[in-house]
Amino acid sequence: MMNEKKAIQDFYSDQMSHCYGCGRLNNFGMKLKSYWNEEEESSIATYIPKAHQTAFPGFVYGGLIASLIDCHGTGTAAAAAYKAEGRKIGTEPELRYVTASLHVDYLKPTPIDQELVLIGKVKEIKGRKVTTEVKLFAAEQLCAQGEVITVKIPETMIFKK
Amino acid sequence: MMNEKKAIQDFYSDQMSHCYGCGRLNNFGMKLKSYWNEEEESSIATYIPKAHQTAFPGFVYGGLIASLIDCHGTGTAAAAAYKAEGRKIGTEPELRYVTASLHVDYLKPTPIDQELVLIGKVKEIKGRKVTTEVKLFAAEQLCAQGEVITVKIPETMIFKK
Repeated sequence: MMNEKKAIQDFYSDQMSHCYGCGRLNNFGMKLKSYWNEEEESSIATYIPKAHQTAFPGFVYGGLIASLIDCHGTGTAAAAAYKAEGRKIGTEPELRYVTASLHVDYLKPTPIDQELVLIGKVKEIKGRKVTTEVKLFAAEQLCAQGEVITVKIPETMIFKK
Repeated sequence: MMNEKKAIQDFYSDQMSHCYGCGRLNNFGMKLKSYWNEEEESSIATYIPKAHQTAFPGFVYGGLIASLIDCHGTGTAAAAAYKAEGRKIGTEPELRYVTASLHVDYLKPTPIDQELVLIGKVKEIKGRKVTTEVKLFAAEQLCAQGEVITVKIPETMIFKK
């Protein structure tokens, strides 16, 4: 069912869709897709690690986890901001958030042979700042959790070619 | 001169050298090399971003910065731990550190067309825990800074095939 609707990142304008982590137009990238779940007021994304994204044999490297949490966090922030303004995601003016700070707690080694599931929640919306919390699970085990403090990009910085 | 000596990661045993961020045996990875500077009690690494490691046009994605800080931080922790034991890097038993938590403050957008320079310092060594601080510069501008809390891997977990 998740795949029947558009991901948050699918609403990003073309010029803002080149991110290695989540840009739909970056063909070298990971193309993370985050979906907003209205009922649960949370966001979900999944990612299947590639064999080379390893740290030690059997486990993913920490930078991958940080990347996934970061991109899922900024996507979640955008979705939450539209919601807070009572607007549908993707309506103009475009709302986009960049990371001001990222904190990740690595709770246990994250297996590389499992689908990873990211669940995002909004902790706080305050002015231009949206703070999100992202948990990363593998086989239903919580492996890492992060906090992403994001800041709204000034509209003048949103590139439209 | 930096290239005349071995990097911290060059001393990692083969089985521990597959990390996407800094493993010398991961041919898909970034092969980050961290060098210990004895006089300044700090570590240095450099990285030239690839065009696809972008966030928005002209700037690197946050996950890359987190990855570089993470790998440079764990390498720095290993070097510092050898030094604290009065041993040369790479002597047995092998000392390796994994990340327990990572915090990154993104201070300004990091350009993608510049060499990035990472400087690591040790903040604290306490039991099995080493805390490092890593600053990331582009064109001598401080773009991001991070704290990496690392924990020593039990010797029994260090794979030797």
